[in-house]
Amino acid sequence: MSISEAATSEAAETTLVTLSDIEAAAERISDLVLRTPIIQLPHPQRPDEVLHCKAESLQPTSAFKLRGAYNTIAQVLDHAREHGIVAQSSGNHARAVAWLAHRLNLRAVIVMPDAAPLPKIEAVRALGAEVEIVPSALRDVRAHELVAQHGYVHVPPYDDPRIIAGQGTVGLEIMQQLPNVDTVLVPVSGGGLISGIATAVKALNPGTRVIGVEPELAADAAQSFREGRRITWEQELTYRTVADGLRTPALGVHPWEHVKRYVDDVITVTEEQILAAMRHLTLAGRLVVEPSGAVATAAWMHDLVPSGNTQKDGGTTAAVVSGGSVDPALLAKVLQQAG
Amino acid sequence: MSISEAATSEAAETTLVTLSDIEAAAERISDLVLRTPIIQLPHPQRPDEVLHCKAESLQPTSAFKLRGAYNTIAQVLDHAREHGIVAQSSGNHARAVAWLAHRLNLRAVIVMPDAAPLPKIEAVRALGAEVEIVPSALRDVRAHELVAQHGYVHVPPYDDPRIIAGQGTVGLEIMQQLPNVDTVLVPVSGGGLISGIATAVKALNPGTRVIGVEPELAADAAQSFREGRRITWEQELTYRTVADGLRTPALGVHPWEHVKRYVDDVITVTEEQILAAMRHLTLAGRLVVEPSGAVATAAWMHDLVPSGNTQKDGGTTAAVVSGGSVDPALLAKVLQQAG
Repeated sequence: MSISEAATSEAAETTLVTLSDIEAAAERISDLVLRTPIIQLPHPQRPDEVLHCKAESLQPTSAFKLRGAYNTIAQVLDHAREHGIVAQSSGNHARAVAWLAHRLNLRAVIVMPDAAPLPKIEAVRALGAEVEIVPSALRDVRAHELVAQHGYVHVPPYDDPRIIAGQGTVGLEIMQQLPNVDTVLVPVSGGGLISGIATAVKALNPGTRVIGVEPELAADAAQSFREGRRITWEQELTYRTVADGLRTPALGVHPWEHVKRYVDDVITVTEEQILAAMRHLTLAGRLVVEPSGAVATAAWMHDLVPSGNTQKDGGTTAAVVSGGSVDPALLAKVLQQAG
Repeated sequence: MSISEAATSEAAETTLVTLSDIEAAAERISDLVLRTPIIQLPHPQRPDEVLHCKAESLQPTSAFKLRGAYNTIAQVLDHAREHGIVAQSSGNHARAVAWLAHRLNLRAVIVMPDAAPLPKIEAVRALGAEVEIVPSALRDVRAHELVAQHGYVHVPPYDDPRIIAGQGTVGLEIMQQLPNVDTVLVPVSGGGLISGIATAVKALNPGTRVIGVEPELAADAAQSFREGRRITWEQELTYRTVADGLRTPALGVHPWEHVKRYVDDVITVTEEQILAAMRHLTLAGRLVVEPSGAVATAAWMHDLVPSGNTQKDGGTTAAVVSGGSVDPALLAKVLQQAG
């Protein structure tokens, strides 16, 4: 969503997702989405302390994005079968929608920015989706044009209650797998993932903290949280971080409403901390993660999680490892650094 | 087990493990062992074909070894609490036993060969186990000495029905997670893992093939299978392979009895094929694997799995990804190779 559009739709009504929306989503998506395991990651300095990592990197398209996309498509499947689906994204959302279209035998058009790396474009094409390359600023406009012209079902990346409910199934599973969890750490970009998770977690245990984690270099959500209003950062700023999945310049309108109500804090990590967490997740957790997928783990590893506000400080902590689409050269570089 | 000892114990009675032994093991170990997920790995050339990877690399100590060790210890827990436990290994078995001792609050002595890499020794010490370093040839003798002197419970790495039953829980889970599987590919070293898996698989569906995979450079089990007798390779030969977990010079006595009865074939892969599989598992499967953990995947990727003997050739194939304790420098090197 472009910045101007976000501002326009601010006035639109937002709907808070409920636990039963998330439970319905879990039912809807169970045939194609992996119930990911929780992997115990020992702390690098204090091996008796473990972080419970929810390994969404193990999903078929390497990220949690499959959950929200499938929850959306499944609710309009007849229409999607007749007219096809459209999405705009250069990353994991594009791959998730293309993969679902392939599995469900739907026509899919993915609108990608001209700045998208060629391997990502080819990965989407290899799944049988049509790709339309447009200037970055026109992505959303073009997606909506295609909907208007051809009746495609639009599958938005995060600013939609069906997407939020789908991503919320991560939170539902965490509460089933780890009922006594005290703190859940979640990477934040457009905010769909943390909104769904916080809704599920707070409905099932209001005492469990939900804390968002962002790169210091793309900290629009942390600033929004502190100032109590939805703030947009310039793309020139957010594009500085290595965490390419977290460069969205603002929380979505729907996510902001959920973050305000349900999230306990939003904290930030440095670039160095992100890379150290990638290395530790690879070697001690045997999980391949992209930088965006490592930010929550980075906050825990570097003792940045604020204490307080639950009965047991230093209790059970979970982190969402959100994605694993890593550039091989970057991962190799991280592995060669001293431990 | 040293070669001379293996020859001596050949005459000893061997017991075939049963499905109910494996079901009892599954019950016994469920509180500390992860029910690992099956990850869909697309074929590098034919993306519509997938391999179902049983990701044992995600276990707390990076490998399936926890299953057999825990199944053994759990059956003599009172004795182990009183006297402690002893194991001899330089690799994943050592780590599994040390980790279990730590979790169960048992005294543990791990006998390690003087050739063991320092990081592996330190990893075992960090878990609180005592380490005794001995010349490689004396490992087994020293372990038995400690049992005789102090009454320790000995936890053998593979040549024991309790170990085989524990590792068999991998097969039980595969049949539950993937009831229509046609072929199961399993890395082979001492043979404990494939023995347990084959026992479970054949009991639940005699039509499912179980095929062992070995490095070409350590192909004692493949040769044994072809010649119908248990053959020992010289360590100088088996130590050539990069797959350091598969350098055991011969199948164990108990495993050989299971392999003869239940395994359909044992095939081999080259060093280059192993490294290519490591790369593909990392990038397309988001699984961190050691070379030994990649051999079964290597056989599938390179179309080495023999056709025939099930109703559906090219049907559903599963591979056990057995371990993830990889040297960071080796993984970095593999990632830098052209895809």
